[in-house]
Amino acid sequence: MKIDILTIFPEMFDVLNHSMIGKAQEKELVEIQTVDFRQFATNNQKHVDDYPYGGGEGMLLLPQPIFDAFESIEGPKSRVILLDPAGKKFTQKMAEDFAQEEQLVFICGHYEGYDERIKNLVTDEVSLGDFVLTGGEMAAISIIDATVRLIPEVLGQAASHENDSFSNGLLEYPQYTRPADFRGMSVPEVLTSGNHEKIRQWRLKESLRKTKQRRPDLLESYSLTDEMVQLLVDIQEEENN
Amino acid sequence: MKIDILTIFPEMFDVLNHSMIGKAQEKELVEIQTVDFRQFATNNQKHVDDYPYGGGEGMLLLPQPIFDAFESIEGPKSRVILLDPAGKKFTQKMAEDFAQEEQLVFICGHYEGYDERIKNLVTDEVSLGDFVLTGGEMAAISIIDATVRLIPEVLGQAASHENDSFSNGLLEYPQYTRPADFRGMSVPEVLTSGNHEKIRQWRLKESLRKTKQRRPDLLESYSLTDEMVQLLVDIQEEENN
Repeated sequence: MKIDILTIFPEMFDVLNHSMIGKAQEKELVEIQTVDFRQFATNNQKHVDDYPYGGGEGMLLLPQPIFDAFESIEGPKSRVILLDPAGKKFTQKMAEDFAQEEQLVFICGHYEGYDERIKNLVTDEVSLGDFVLTGGEMAAISIIDATVRLIPEVLGQAASHENDSFSNGLLEYPQYTRPADFRGMSVPEVLTSGNHEKIRQWRLKESLRKTKQRRPDLLESYSLTDEMVQLLVDIQEEENN
Repeated sequence: MKIDILTIFPEMFDVLNHSMIGKAQEKELVEIQTVDFRQFATNNQKHVDDYPYGGGEGMLLLPQPIFDAFESIEGPKSRVILLDPAGKKFTQKMAEDFAQEEQLVFICGHYEGYDERIKNLVTDEVSLGDFVLTGGEMAAISIIDATVRLIPEVLGQAASHENDSFSNGLLEYPQYTRPADFRGMSVPEVLTSGNHEKIRQWRLKESLRKTKQRRPDLLESYSLTDEMVQLLVDIQEEENN
């Protein structure tokens, strides 16, 4: 996959040179490039922003440098993603879709906003969530991270994202590692019992318990097995006692 | 404000040295420090992770290095935030709360997850959204960005976050800057009319239109003025024609 990022802060994307995304780049599973669209400004001062028509505070990104920078990028530009708090909310499903594409282009707004005409280049307006960031860069970083880790071979073990929260529709059960007793806090006995069936059951139950408590919306759209229904009855009874 | 980040990838937080958050640090409006908890591992190999009790794929963060690193941090540690996809979803309201605090501590999980006992240190389990990242670092970066920009004096103009999408409950209206005609795409006439009242009305209407189309949930909880109700009727009529 090829990822191109239009930004006036290219150095911010150095954050993608670490950890798993860094390794994915080294292994050439993904090629990430930034395009500093300030280099494409045709005005003498290399300004990329100007005052809004109709008045108001703050500055807006000019269309010209972004259009020209966009046209300098080679490839099919399969998806062109504009980061915007008013866009469609980013989800795991969207990450899975993006991970199938040949090339993603990200346009990172900054300052108060951007000229509306820039949207003519865009296939997807995406928001990271109901909060406001100083620029689209932060959102692009998270979206690239969530997407690239789904490209085959990026995670060490191919299977290791199959237990993620959300990817199977339930929140993850609590996990424990060494030592069995840490400062008086002990690991649940079942996990050191060696009884695989009991461990499986305990994990499923705790996964259901957490999802019921925190994200009942996820359960509503879930196809529950008979075992899950019985475990939810048990959880309800425990809560009533 | 003081922000301390427990992470095994401290270099990733260099991303906060740019743009507005970088300037906020230079002006000493916020002090951001990372603590590499690998330095606190007491085992010979400086391992910070181990296999899960009860079996399963992937590695979990050990409690000991994180507890010891946490205790090395000075200050009131007003909020201790664990990044977790199963946590409470981050919102602008949460950013506003965090921006009031004296000290925030972030614990960034990585690998498959962390030992459940680490939660005993934590006041807030927070998720950036319904998607999975390679580590808590990416989420922490966005949360810190959204929070720090709300600290007084961080944004150039004190007022300039008051027009943000969400902070007034509606999505932002479309904005335009120079030139009035770009590659045949023109700015809406009203914005170059100089008629301030018409401009105000147009912006309010477009703000309502976008919110109605994209985020009707935001309108449901909104106290609409008589003018807004009338504009929504007009928008509905336009859609029917």
